[in-house]
Amino acid sequence: MSYVNAADRAPVTVVGLGLMGQALAGALLDAGHPTTVWNRTAGKADRLVERGAVLAPSVGDAVAAGPLVIVCVTDYAVVRELFEPLGGVLDGKVVVNLTTGTSAQARETAEWVTRSGGAGYLDGAVMAVPADIATDAAVLLYSGPKEHFAEHEATLRALGGAGTTYLDTDHGLSALYDLSLLGIMWGILNGFLQGAALLGTAQVKATTFAPLANTMINVVTEYVSAYAPQIDAGEYPAGDATMTVHQEAMAHLVEESETLGVNAELPRFLKVLVDRAVTAGHAGSGYAALIEQFRAGTSG
Amino acid sequence: MSYVNAADRAPVTVVGLGLMGQALAGALLDAGHPTTVWNRTAGKADRLVERGAVLAPSVGDAVAAGPLVIVCVTDYAVVRELFEPLGGVLDGKVVVNLTTGTSAQARETAEWVTRSGGAGYLDGAVMAVPADIATDAAVLLYSGPKEHFAEHEATLRALGGAGTTYLDTDHGLSALYDLSLLGIMWGILNGFLQGAALLGTAQVKATTFAPLANTMINVVTEYVSAYAPQIDAGEYPAGDATMTVHQEAMAHLVEESETLGVNAELPRFLKVLVDRAVTAGHAGSGYAALIEQFRAGTSG
Repeated sequence: MSYVNAADRAPVTVVGLGLMGQALAGALLDAGHPTTVWNRTAGKADRLVERGAVLAPSVGDAVAAGPLVIVCVTDYAVVRELFEPLGGVLDGKVVVNLTTGTSAQARETAEWVTRSGGAGYLDGAVMAVPADIATDAAVLLYSGPKEHFAEHEATLRALGGAGTTYLDTDHGLSALYDLSLLGIMWGILNGFLQGAALLGTAQVKATTFAPLANTMINVVTEYVSAYAPQIDAGEYPAGDATMTVHQEAMAHLVEESETLGVNAELPRFLKVLVDRAVTAGHAGSGYAALIEQFRAGTSG
Repeated sequence: MSYVNAADRAPVTVVGLGLMGQALAGALLDAGHPTTVWNRTAGKADRLVERGAVLAPSVGDAVAAGPLVIVCVTDYAVVRELFEPLGGVLDGKVVVNLTTGTSAQARETAEWVTRSGGAGYLDGAVMAVPADIATDAAVLLYSGPKEHFAEHEATLRALGGAGTTYLDTDHGLSALYDLSLLGIMWGILNGFLQGAALLGTAQVKATTFAPLANTMINVVTEYVSAYAPQIDAGEYPAGDATMTVHQEAMAHLVEESETLGVNAELPRFLKVLVDRAVTAGHAGSGYAALIEQFRAGTSG
């Protein structure tokens, strides 16, 4: 944390003071930005006010306080409920919405925020826990007109650092990346939990398993890098293991889970997808051929 | 690769010359070990013989050639078919079986290999692609009597390096770790494929997605480290996001997948598990509380 002259820093407004909103506002205060905050439950601003934030009496007053409005609330319905009634108060402002939602919600919000022509809109996503905000471990994604990002980049970098990433003019992309990256996170965590459950039957602690799990997780980044160009090319040579080898190993994981009385649903689900790829002619292909199963829509 | 005097190195036998077996034998040759090989289809030994390996005329001759026998074949049934008829030829040898299987198969194999009292047995697992063998990126796991590992550790380190890991006297543990770590690998890869399918609908290439995916994958190692002690303690405080927050984000992933016509089975499956945890009273818990769902056996 560096103490800087607040006069050098652009004023910022933060609307929404859940755990993440508080971390964002705190990072801006630490970086010396005059910070105005608002939350439906005003008490959540107490600690920030002690640290120098100004608590606005209404969301409209909060927005009026500066050129940049960072929003982090429960969902997009709340964003609309709070901001649509403000009308011209948004003129000349850039709204950066870090609320989690879908790409369609992001594009729809961009549409009504910018309808009158006076306000700018960036949609964003925070890929970090509150404790990592303002560190290089925090990845923050932004999409929308690049000039809005460029105008406020210096301020936005107070929230993330090296992980501050501008994606695309399409407002929907940060939501799409957000959900895609969360999907990877859940995949890792569920794999770890399945393993911890299996190893737990042999009295291996999760804390004993975690270091090797993390070694494996790091190794798999190489596979991701290797499979990505195969996916783009639509060709999936088996440089390491064929789909059949994966299928057999998955059968072992199913058998192991069933034998040890651990939930076998995840192993079975893994194998169903690979079974389909084999049936579709990919027995000798590499794992990346499974992309065709993920692309296929299902109504079931 | 370093050229060393073969006289300094212990002789080793490798049985099974698939892609992995060839990589293992090649690493032993590179490290200067006199290496005897055998494979059902002898032609697979050609390149190794050019590099100095001795091709044994039978599996029995291969085993007789040295004190350490490394086995990497299709499955445990093949291991039994090849080695059980050898009887006393195994006396005084240590068999290190790197074939993929279940913990029950590993323990059963240990039982019949060591039944006569003359042979030693280590079960092992290779967490690496063939190209990574003999590098620090290769993790090789061993379980069984520690004295067998200690006796041959110097030779086994030619296969892995820093990732050479002795786990436990329980012969079943390397298989259990192997399958648990593979489960994490599949979880990551499936998450990446789901995301690549979603982002593909917006013309984002997998190669564009991969670097951010890998950043996220690295960040999640911190969550694994944080959740492991919670799992061991049976207490799951929500330091970051509550189960309800995950549940809502998963609902967005389901909606996004369905709207974009991408396979929504994986997102729905993720959410089913979290829905159950919420129903079980974990709405306000952290994600690690899901361990209880993974531990619960299901017959469905």
